[in-house]
Amino acid sequence: MKRKLRMGMVGGGPGAFIGAVHRTAARLDGKIELVCGAFSSSAEKSKAAGRELFLPDERVYGSFQEMIEAEASLPAGERMDFVSIVTPNHMHLPVALAALERGFHVICDKPMTLNLEDAVTLRDKVNEAGLVFCLTHNYTGYPMVKQAREMVQAGQLGEIRKIVSEYPQGWLARRIEDDNHKQAAWRTDPKISGVSCCMGDIGSHAENLAAYITGLKITELCADLNTFVPGRRLDDDGSVLVRFDNGARGIIYASQISAGDDNGLRIRVYGTKGAIEWLQKDPNNLIFKSNDAPVRIYNTGWAGAGAAAAYNTRIPAGHPEGFLEAFANLYRNFAAVVAARIDGVEPAPAACDFPTVEDGVRGMAFIETVVKSAASKEKWVKFPQI
Amino acid sequence: MKRKLRMGMVGGGPGAFIGAVHRTAARLDGKIELVCGAFSSSAEKSKAAGRELFLPDERVYGSFQEMIEAEASLPAGERMDFVSIVTPNHMHLPVALAALERGFHVICDKPMTLNLEDAVTLRDKVNEAGLVFCLTHNYTGYPMVKQAREMVQAGQLGEIRKIVSEYPQGWLARRIEDDNHKQAAWRTDPKISGVSCCMGDIGSHAENLAAYITGLKITELCADLNTFVPGRRLDDDGSVLVRFDNGARGIIYASQISAGDDNGLRIRVYGTKGAIEWLQKDPNNLIFKSNDAPVRIYNTGWAGAGAAAAYNTRIPAGHPEGFLEAFANLYRNFAAVVAARIDGVEPAPAACDFPTVEDGVRGMAFIETVVKSAASKEKWVKFPQI
Amino acid sequence: MKRKLRMGMVGGGPGAFIGAVHRTAARLDGKIELVCGAFSSSAEKSKAAGRELFLPDERVYGSFQEMIEAEASLPAGERMDFVSIVTPNHMHLPVALAALERGFHVICDKPMTLNLEDAVTLRDKVNEAGLVFCLTHNYTGYPMVKQAREMVQAGQLGEIRKIVSEYPQGWLARRIEDDNHKQAAWRTDPKISGVSCCMGDIGSHAENLAAYITGLKITELCADLNTFVPGRRLDDDGSVLVRFDNGARGIIYASQISAGDDNGLRIRVYGTKGAIEWLQKDPNNLIFKSNDAPVRIYNTGWAGAGAAAAYNTRIPAGHPEGFLEAFANLYRNFAAVVAARIDGVEPAPAACDFPTVEDGVRGMAFIETVVKSAASKEKWVKFPQI
Amino acid sequence: MKRKLRMGMVGGGPGAFIGAVHRTAARLDGKIELVCGAFSSSAEKSKAAGRELFLPDERVYGSFQEMIEAEASLPAGERMDFVSIVTPNHMHLPVALAALERGFHVICDKPMTLNLEDAVTLRDKVNEAGLVFCLTHNYTGYPMVKQAREMVQAGQLGEIRKIVSEYPQGWLARRIEDDNHKQAAWRTDPKISGVSCCMGDIGSHAENLAAYITGLKITELCADLNTFVPGRRLDDDGSVLVRFDNGARGIIYASQISAGDDNGLRIRVYGTKGAIEWLQKDPNNLIFKSNDAPVRIYNTGWAGAGAAAAYNTRIPAGHPEGFLEAFANLYRNFAAVVAARIDGVEPAPAACDFPTVEDGVRGMAFIETVVKSAASKEKWVKFPQI
Repeated sequence: MKRKLRMGMVGGGPGAFIGAVHRTAARLDGKIELVCGAFSSSAEKSKAAGRELFLPDERVYGSFQEMIEAEASLPAGERMDFVSIVTPNHMHLPVALAALERGFHVICDKPMTLNLEDAVTLRDKVNEAGLVFCLTHNYTGYPMVKQAREMVQAGQLGEIRKIVSEYPQGWLARRIEDDNHKQAAWRTDPKISGVSCCMGDIGSHAENLAAYITGLKITELCADLNTFVPGRRLDDDGSVLVRFDNGARGIIYASQISAGDDNGLRIRVYGTKGAIEWLQKDPNNLIFKSNDAPVRIYNTGWAGAGAAAAYNTRIPAGHPEGFLEAFANLYRNFAAVVAARIDGVEPAPAACDFPTVEDGVRGMAFIETVVKSAASKEKWVKFPQI
Repeated sequence: MKRKLRMGMVGGGPGAFIGAVHRTAARLDGKIELVCGAFSSSAEKSKAAGRELFLPDERVYGSFQEMIEAEASLPAGERMDFVSIVTPNHMHLPVALAALERGFHVICDKPMTLNLEDAVTLRDKVNEAGLVFCLTHNYTGYPMVKQAREMVQAGQLGEIRKIVSEYPQGWLARRIEDDNHKQAAWRTDPKISGVSCCMGDIGSHAENLAAYITGLKITELCADLNTFVPGRRLDDDGSVLVRFDNGARGIIYASQISAGDDNGLRIRVYGTKGAIEWLQKDPNNLIFKSNDAPVRIYNTGWAGAGAAAAYNTRIPAGHPEGFLEAFANLYRNFAAVVAARIDGVEPAPAACDFPTVEDGVRGMAFIETVVKSAASKEKWVKFPQI
Repeated sequence: MKRKLRMGMVGGGPGAFIGAVHRTAARLDGKIELVCGAFSSSAEKSKAAGRELFLPDERVYGSFQEMIEAEASLPAGERMDFVSIVTPNHMHLPVALAALERGFHVICDKPMTLNLEDAVTLRDKVNEAGLVFCLTHNYTGYPMVKQAREMVQAGQLGEIRKIVSEYPQGWLARRIEDDNHKQAAWRTDPKISGVSCCMGDIGSHAENLAAYITGLKITELCADLNTFVPGRRLDDDGSVLVRFDNGARGIIYASQISAGDDNGLRIRVYGTKGAIEWLQKDPNNLIFKSNDAPVRIYNTGWAGAGAAAAYNTRIPAGHPEGFLEAFANLYRNFAAVVAARIDGVEPAPAACDFPTVEDGVRGMAFIETVVKSAASKEKWVKFPQI
Repeated sequence: MKRKLRMGMVGGGPGAFIGAVHRTAARLDGKIELVCGAFSSSAEKSKAAGRELFLPDERVYGSFQEMIEAEASLPAGERMDFVSIVTPNHMHLPVALAALERGFHVICDKPMTLNLEDAVTLRDKVNEAGLVFCLTHNYTGYPMVKQAREMVQAGQLGEIRKIVSEYPQGWLARRIEDDNHKQAAWRTDPKISGVSCCMGDIGSHAENLAAYITGLKITELCADLNTFVPGRRLDDDGSVLVRFDNGARGIIYASQISAGDDNGLRIRVYGTKGAIEWLQKDPNNLIFKSNDAPVRIYNTGWAGAGAAAAYNTRIPAGHPEGFLEAFANLYRNFAAVVAARIDGVEPAPAACDFPTVEDGVRGMAFIETVVKSAASKEKWVKFPQI
């Protein structure tokens, strides 16, 4: 690939949070350039956003349909290579289907769709199209998460017995969706967000992180979902007991009413021989402990880090990499695979490390099963094997 | 009280762990002296233990019955004032009943009895005897736990919504009960330990800590108990979803197979206005956080600590107090109440701060309900209001 | 500014570390594009590096002189706006002078020059040219460093009494300059690095951080410089006692033989009313403590952060920002001032927050005075007021 | 030894801090009983203090001379075995000399004497008397400090190159000696405290800790002593550059005006192969780091702790031991050696691990040399080899 990949974006206009994160992540490694966008369903707002991003007016569109059609009709040397979808949840499916239909690779924010059925539809479409699809479960992009996964795979923890994956936040402790808070408003609106707010928005990250690190599959679960803030239409807190296919047990919990917490994603995985612990707010350290030796702390860029961690690290130890760098690792790896596809070569195996449409299907199954369990008097609800 | 209180001990002979802890805790503040003991069911071992403790042979007994009878027949100015019970669980009840019967105050290790029925029996006996009873849920003795409780009571957290209380350990990750490990052997033996190992031994601490800090009552719960080590006769891990009487929800979990963890008791309590977090391994710090202000860290002995914390602190800030000091706070406060009783005066209100027979009843109800829930297909099991 | 600023780079070819950091930092916020470069003194290597960066061959030069001349002759709408200098130290001055001579703004790595005399020469040139100059003392770019500075300026610490600024590293604990380690080789070579290795490379960061946060000036100092690794030509460790113009005292130390440390820059500033502590490896937290209140922890993006911190923060609290983001804050602010200059408007006051040529002069004075003191038998050596 | 050792105390009456610490430390392990005391120079206050401690009036004395004479004349089976000296500094020497003169072993608070000359006098007396003397540099009692020492001795750090030992406190940030603050008043009074406040009180701990862990000797030093609080008669802050006999360099600093710090004793020792770091406020963890492996954290009672650490640990890992336990380790080891002496047997080698009169001589030499250096224009002042 002798040029930057060309990215088009859908969503991410004024007031959005995650759009700017995606753009920064895409830009960070200098391999991707933003060439077009449909940043808002208002053509005017979309143009304004495009100008802020120094895009020429003619590449800024009033709708995703318009963008996809217009770009598809551009010469191969000009048109975008892939679409980045950063809209609220309900728009992920239609945008992705349209993009895939016209041959564009897709990188899409999570959760993948509004419901499990849609997720399966999208998976089938991706498989049929044979295009590259990345779902931005960004926390898997941290080097020390990859280190944890490598250590599990290498058997350093022994057989996994217990997983505790948690994600407490506090920003929805009050009903700020009534205060014109755009982020809160759409997340608590079932038409836009789906059947769950808290479990969909962040519980799905906790699930994904556990699956990424351990490779285990949930077989059944038991959930308690709560809506603490009166008048709120979706859950703002939930706790789930889970059972895995190898006999391991776990707890996955997420909360948006945990006052004082901001982004406290933490995972602990215990095996017969040792355990790892990782906290998103201290992302460059990975704790390994066992009954037989002093605690060890692995650090991004430092001695003892494995190949996957090293591949996803930019700067030497002691120079903290953060959220944006982890997010950028997804873009970087996705872009490398897209570039290899365009060049007609095999991608580097290390680059093929990003969440896919399968993560999206499993994530939607998790959200739906949790909601189902929360409404059930039965203790254990089977996890669908789709 | 112009003299030290006189303590007799039952249990705590060779190979025991907690007996030495109780003795050190009793001794720490110089208000209690050990005057007699029945340290082992072997008279010989008991004598040997007594000599190590510089006790005269005639005050070292071969059984608790012998001790209680002999001491009761000594002159008032000589006989012990109270009994400390540090045997395995199954002996707590008979020793306590015998002691109370002969007018001795009692301080007893936890869990209180083998089962809930026995706990109620003991409560009735304590109430009937009108004597002082302390149950050594020692983690409530830490100054920063008391600080947390005061902050909850003062409304600084607002209405409580969520409690996460956890206690991971790893020492039973292998079947060490087969290796002549006395501590492991009795804890995994249902005849000695009761219906639960992990939940009884440490889950009960996690429950007690939550109750102590918040004052909330569990109304129903949903438990998953596990025995990971093949051949083990009781649970070695468990997770419990709980619902409280004010509408708060919570997670209580305990584990003895969490390889690499030693004594990771941690509690987080979230309210509408703020949250506290406390970790037993860093006991002199209490974290307070809210959505509206920087995180604050309260420290033992430091500015901002409340009256209960200050009352239970010995040395200035920056001089770490630990497990033994916290344990000693229970002894100190219990002893102050016993001394006041002997002197015929009212105890200082601040001294009346230690776990009682009511904690024991509630704790046994917790253990039994968890075991019942774990065996049930029903999702929620009511917590008995006894 | 309706376009991205155009950057040319000198240095940063194969084997370099800091060049890639500068490019990433420049790229992060999408306001700057790299348009040309002289990446190596070998024209071939420079071309190769340029191709990796997707630059057209005609904008990749074999020397900085060639680049500056060629770019200066391009039409205004095409030529670079500023030069980024990322060479080893000895090249900073000639490149900067040439760039300023032809009207290009300059952003330059530190330490600024080979010696104090050169630093003064450069300052005079910058002042004469009336162009924008930024020296990348990047640690001042962290939001929590800016928070610290704001708190000092607002008087929250009272009068400053004591400053401890330290920077331990361990990577030069062995003589790796003999192992073809390019980074080590030039830093320990006096012709390229100047009169000091450790104090020049990282002691200067510790000095700069103290000056940035407190605004105090050193009046005299007493240094002990060490070369622990046999055969090394420059210092690899040093400790300095310092006295400030308001009567405050301090310790500045740096080390490259502190085995096991990577990038442990830490600063503590104590005043009559309170103190701050900041650690580069945990950059998103700033500790504030006083004798009268619980410790407070300020967090990037969180409640209580001041205007300067907020201005230099991209993402909400709980999403760690790291080294690259802090570095990018310098580029972003520098670029905003350059853009305002081009547009003929006043820059936002908040953007004028980056290290300048004055920091460079003071930094070189620090390095030279430390070296002078280390060789002296006199206890205190005056700090030159230039 | 078939009985508890009998302790007499001098000092530690009302308003004292350290007396209660010594008594608790002596009591903790149940091997020592307080049998008599001269707690105050006022006979009345002494009696009152004795009654609080449940001592019979006839064993509570109005002066140390009276106590030593009276006790010496008691039958061997009754009289005290050793004297604990917890007075302000100026009284250490006369009490110790009198006690040694009458054959009593001595345990004494630090700094040992008012000046170096007195320290040498005391050393000669101890040697002449052939009695056991312990100086309570209590921080060496922590298990993880002993672990650090063992690791240095075992060569795990390689050759030591750099030591940073610091002790920041903030309690003297204001002139509280004028507010009837007894602790502050005597420490800032040269007649009672000696030639230094800050360096004598806590700088000496920092020195002692470095010497204990590394075994290195200071050969020369360069000090800056400060008195920040106007009107104060002694130093309240100081920084010292030090050089050791093996070529290592270091920084020792102490401060009592570091607002917000309470007891921040921290030591870092760097060798050619690795480094340790220990912080008194987190005493149960010892950090070991190197350039070649992940950071390791040793924990009191946990896997990997060495023999000396284990010998000085009471409870299993995860149960924090604190300041009092560390202090008690000195008493316990001292008492074991005294008991062996009384029994006419060799003490266990592990028990012979406590600071002695040699630490006291070296400590006084440190204090005096620092004060001398602070007043000197010469850069380096030789450390006396006495």
